[in-house]
Amino acid sequence: MASIWPIGALLIGAPRAWAEDGYDLWLRNAPVDAAGAQRIGASAQSIVGADTPTLMIARRELQRGIAGLTGVTAPLTATVQQGAILLQSAAQQDEASVPTDGLGPDGYAIRTMTVAGKPVTVIAGATDAGVLHGAYAWLRLARTGAALDRIDMRSAPRIGLRLLNHWDNLDGTVERGYAGQSIWDWWRLPDYKGPRYTDYARANASLGINGTVLNNVNAKSDSLTAAYIAKAAALADLFRPYGIKVYLSVKWTAPMELDGLKSADPLDPAVAAWWKAKADQIYKAIPDFGGFLVKANSEGQPGPQDYKRTHADGANMLAAAVKPHGGIVMWRAFVYAHDNPDDRAKQAYSDFKPLDGQFADNVIVQVKNGAIDFQPREPFHPLFGAMPKTPLMMEFQITKEYLGQSTHLTYLGTLFEETLKSDTLAKGKGSTVAKVIDGSLEGHKLTGIAGVANIGVDRDWSGSIFNQADWYAFGRMAWDTDLTAEAVAREWAAQTFSPDPNVVAPIVAMMMRSREAAVDYMTPLGLAHIMGTGHHYGPAPWVSELARPEWNPVYYHKADRQGIGFDRTRTGSNATGQYAPALAKLLDNPRTTPERDLLWFHHLPWDYRLQSGETLWDGLIHHYDRGVETVAAMQRDWAKLKPQVDAERFAQVETFLAIQHREAQWWRDACIAYFQSVSGRPLPAGSAAPAHPLDWYKALSFPYAPGHPK
Amino acid sequence: MASIWPIGALLIGAPRAWAEDGYDLWLRNAPVDAAGAQRIGASAQSIVGADTPTLMIARRELQRGIAGLTGVTAPLTATVQQGAILLQSAAQQDEASVPTDGLGPDGYAIRTMTVAGKPVTVIAGATDAGVLHGAYAWLRLARTGAALDRIDMRSAPRIGLRLLNHWDNLDGTVERGYAGQSIWDWWRLPDYKGPRYTDYARANASLGINGTVLNNVNAKSDSLTAAYIAKAAALADLFRPYGIKVYLSVKWTAPMELDGLKSADPLDPAVAAWWKAKADQIYKAIPDFGGFLVKANSEGQPGPQDYKRTHADGANMLAAAVKPHGGIVMWRAFVYAHDNPDDRAKQAYSDFKPLDGQFADNVIVQVKNGAIDFQPREPFHPLFGAMPKTPLMMEFQITKEYLGQSTHLTYLGTLFEETLKSDTLAKGKGSTVAKVIDGSLEGHKLTGIAGVANIGVDRDWSGSIFNQADWYAFGRMAWDTDLTAEAVAREWAAQTFSPDPNVVAPIVAMMMRSREAAVDYMTPLGLAHIMGTGHHYGPAPWVSELARPEWNPVYYHKADRQGIGFDRTRTGSNATGQYAPALAKLLDNPRTTPERDLLWFHHLPWDYRLQSGETLWDGLIHHYDRGVETVAAMQRDWAKLKPQVDAERFAQVETFLAIQHREAQWWRDACIAYFQSVSGRPLPAGSAAPAHPLDWYKALSFPYAPGHPK
Repeated sequence: MASIWPIGALLIGAPRAWAEDGYDLWLRNAPVDAAGAQRIGASAQSIVGADTPTLMIARRELQRGIAGLTGVTAPLTATVQQGAILLQSAAQQDEASVPTDGLGPDGYAIRTMTVAGKPVTVIAGATDAGVLHGAYAWLRLARTGAALDRIDMRSAPRIGLRLLNHWDNLDGTVERGYAGQSIWDWWRLPDYKGPRYTDYARANASLGINGTVLNNVNAKSDSLTAAYIAKAAALADLFRPYGIKVYLSVKWTAPMELDGLKSADPLDPAVAAWWKAKADQIYKAIPDFGGFLVKANSEGQPGPQDYKRTHADGANMLAAAVKPHGGIVMWRAFVYAHDNPDDRAKQAYSDFKPLDGQFADNVIVQVKNGAIDFQPREPFHPLFGAMPKTPLMMEFQITKEYLGQSTHLTYLGTLFEETLKSDTLAKGKGSTVAKVIDGSLEGHKLTGIAGVANIGVDRDWSGSIFNQADWYAFGRMAWDTDLTAEAVAREWAAQTFSPDPNVVAPIVAMMMRSREAAVDYMTPLGLAHIMGTGHHYGPAPWVSELARPEWNPVYYHKADRQGIGFDRTRTGSNATGQYAPALAKLLDNPRTTPERDLLWFHHLPWDYRLQSGETLWDGLIHHYDRGVETVAAMQRDWAKLKPQVDAERFAQVETFLAIQHREAQWWRDACIAYFQSVSGRPLPAGSAAPAHPLDWYKALSFPYAPGHPK
Repeated sequence: MASIWPIGALLIGAPRAWAEDGYDLWLRNAPVDAAGAQRIGASAQSIVGADTPTLMIARRELQRGIAGLTGVTAPLTATVQQGAILLQSAAQQDEASVPTDGLGPDGYAIRTMTVAGKPVTVIAGATDAGVLHGAYAWLRLARTGAALDRIDMRSAPRIGLRLLNHWDNLDGTVERGYAGQSIWDWWRLPDYKGPRYTDYARANASLGINGTVLNNVNAKSDSLTAAYIAKAAALADLFRPYGIKVYLSVKWTAPMELDGLKSADPLDPAVAAWWKAKADQIYKAIPDFGGFLVKANSEGQPGPQDYKRTHADGANMLAAAVKPHGGIVMWRAFVYAHDNPDDRAKQAYSDFKPLDGQFADNVIVQVKNGAIDFQPREPFHPLFGAMPKTPLMMEFQITKEYLGQSTHLTYLGTLFEETLKSDTLAKGKGSTVAKVIDGSLEGHKLTGIAGVANIGVDRDWSGSIFNQADWYAFGRMAWDTDLTAEAVAREWAAQTFSPDPNVVAPIVAMMMRSREAAVDYMTPLGLAHIMGTGHHYGPAPWVSELARPEWNPVYYHKADRQGIGFDRTRTGSNATGQYAPALAKLLDNPRTTPERDLLWFHHLPWDYRLQSGETLWDGLIHHYDRGVETVAAMQRDWAKLKPQVDAERFAQVETFLAIQHREAQWWRDACIAYFQSVSGRPLPAGSAAPAHPLDWYKALSFPYAPGHPK
């Protein structure tokens, strides 16, 4: 007993230095072993570079990282010395020893070479932002245990706009946020600028994220008042040297709400003039303001259709207002109407496809990865590949509204990869979604990808340590859509926990099967949208009484005595007809439809035979069983890591996995209890009956579930 | 330029160890100089003590503090050595070298003495909690630079219940909270128990706070469901070893809302039975549960009066439910009725005074410091001294609803001291409010003091560094009502910033005049309740159209062409008649009324002569001027401290003082613009006209002001 005290006391002596509370994210600079310190130190004995604000940040990050990892400081020197890191800025192009052509505004090159007879590492970019991205890339190599003595890499993103979308409200709440309140302290801005804003910029710049939309797409007009523009400008000033631009979501009726205009008709000259003046006002405060994000005529938001105008009419009017300043408009395609009886999955396509070619050249249409709404799994959105004349921007959801919210470990890298690599067949094989959004398929210059942020004031930023990996994966894959989810998970785990392969391997293995586990215990075989109403927490496949048909889970699974699934084939809603003919042909046939999407496209009898040979009913149950079992296996794998993980983070993950297992069981049992009440079929041998009767699950309520918009 | 880098890098190397983000509060263990390390180390070379959970905490705190302050670890030893700290637990009474009689359940004794021939420091208590309090007291001496080689002190609180009241809602919002969301993560409790809960317990135990009411007095019934009882129990388990009990606010109609009872009539046996069963259920989960806090028939909350029963009927019914378990009921006296035309300041007294002697012996009536509602200044509440047969508990507000909210530096120690030392004259001179609440005036055993917490998830806990001082002052003065605000400020500044007298003296000087400055720029000379509606942010003396008369500022200041003030004398509302006759006599005469309370008790002509000889009108303006000038002086004093304060905290305080100065000017200008519009009088020479016309101030709106209940 007594003997533990001195050790205890030593740890207790400087607890903050070692507190593993997750605040440092993947920028954690924990001391490495002697060999690691030697590996890093040899290539980072000093730093040579210029003095622009951005290059000073690059230098500080390198010095902070090197000092943290090795315990040795890398001084700034004026002359090149052996083992130096040279920051080759845009201004140094003339004397450049590393060519920067083709790197674009954000790319970088890192090369170990001999300069003035000394072995050095050159980090170069065509811009200072490029150099900063290179510095973060070098630190990533250092933290992940990569060799630093022979580097010759060039990296540039193909997608121009790599943005976070914050669904943050002006009152500090975050719609679908599960990591506490908004990190934007609107009330005390622009006066008080706490250190967290800078750490936010560091984290994003380290991934190459180059823009952030500050406020919820369900926007308040107030964010366009002079007071709030000044607040946004204060943030823009902090983010600018990190290569990050600020954008704002706008409410369509702002001209009426703020200045009493009689209409918000996009073709009304007074309305256009108001927006032009508003844009001028914003750019006066934020010269490099990025532009507007718009949710119009969607889920109750006003929009141009209220005036019998099209989305293009609306987008182009706004685009004209920001055009003189080099701004853009991101117009969301997430629309479906209560008075439209057609399959909800078809409505965005029906609305936007006819508008292809009608959008101004500084408009980009932002399309969710799937046609419904960020479900655990959705086939790629049919608009991808269907609007060749229009730049389309991807909208992923990083916050896990439907994937376990704040506690479930469900790594989204695999979801991102699955979507990006989906082949639209729009222009033959290889017409992947990635090529649509990076502009290469149709030759668009304006390209973008957005992630709905999972960031809040929780000390660990994202509500859990593993949720940080989703932010990381979004940023890394936005930079390079060729990256695999596994490679990204490996990078993240090495930086977040330890480069030790005995730590990285099991953690990556957990991450890589985690999202499929959630699909299995929530919505297997192409099921979707069977979650609880409003808060979207937990299972509720039985809900059928909501006002709008497409709000009800029963609308999506259509389970009955005979079978289950939504017939979207040409003999059904013909949503398949919205895909390229070659793909539609495959999707019209259950046998040539990927089984993971089976019930998304087909209504099938319970006796339908899956590829495994088992019936659809038995297979459905077995998927649910497998989902729960996989979480149990993740718990066992995590338990084995106890010796290698600090107590604080080990305990958090252990606790959250226990919650996930309990809730996976709940999803499995509630869904099976319901589907069995419909199918009247016995469970396959070996599958346990639900723990409670169906009514028990129906009676559960969650009045204080987080993230639920008021 | 270059030369700064090595230093910069060194600091950057281990940034977290030195991050002055305020998280450590007054428990900050920054390294002291060599002399200080010698002073502390000599008296803390080892620790000897027993192994109960609470004593282990005491030991860990001592070791953590000593290691942080001196860099040297004090090991636990089994035998007494020179310079040891001996933790003399309750169990060691037999061999006790320090008598602990009279220390009560919480008190401690610290004595330097010779034990087994060795000079040591003994920290003793009649309970383990007492020893823990002693350990924190010793650390306070160490951190504040006190001599440690000659200590002989005994300290025990006279007030039994020293509680925080959290106005925290189950959805994570905090009513009148200005430090972010609630620190209670209800959603993830009882599973996830983050480190913050323990740090919360440490901070409170270090002050001797021994209880916490977890939820808002505007309570939801849900907090009494099994699920939420389990969440509260998880917190109680964490707080127990720190000597802190958990309490809950209850909603009067919970039996109806949760279990469909037809009534909440306290005399209905079914209702009494429900509460008894509920109490049994709570004590099963929380054996040392403290009891209930009740806001009934107040501001729309239901209560026993809805059934024609008295507050005593309601309190006694609940008291019977918790009595078998040793629990208590804290029944709030904050009541006023929309249908009661009498002076709002009189209504609590009118309701409760007749009930004196009717309350069960485990009921304590919780009375706000003043008769209105936590105004910048109020005379003490007339109930103090007026209910001799009833234990009265003080309710202070630590969160600064009316005193500048999250940004103004307005140290509340002076407000607490002013109230506690007010003489009720109830039993002759010296019948102070402190003696009423510590039970000594009427010989009550059940005694208490509560502070409405200013705690949230902001990294610095309280929304600003200086707001931490209000939490500290409440705890310290609850422990010892004889402490002066200045002595407490000195302790706090020394621990929070530095024991250096050149730092402590100017900071204490700022703190000591800060609240009087706020009174001057907000509500001088006894004015009250002239703030903005709802959010209570900023000035709005002109508001007159609210539904209930007593909600309108004009109700309180009654300013007109002739004069200003609320006539509460015997010829007015006769609120003065609620005080002891000797005091009432003084208050009925403006000349014998403390000028600070003048307009609270008197309506006087603008030409009334103040003690200074100037007219009331001129004096009012001069008070407003002085308030703004004092804040400007505080800004100058803080600026001088830049060399001695870390950059992070210096910048935050500098920014907040700038906000405070701007808002002080706003208060001053808006109030003067309004009062001048009523009085029609010219400003005294040297007083500047308001910056804007009155309508400009009236037009301001603050839709997203924090802390405003939805």
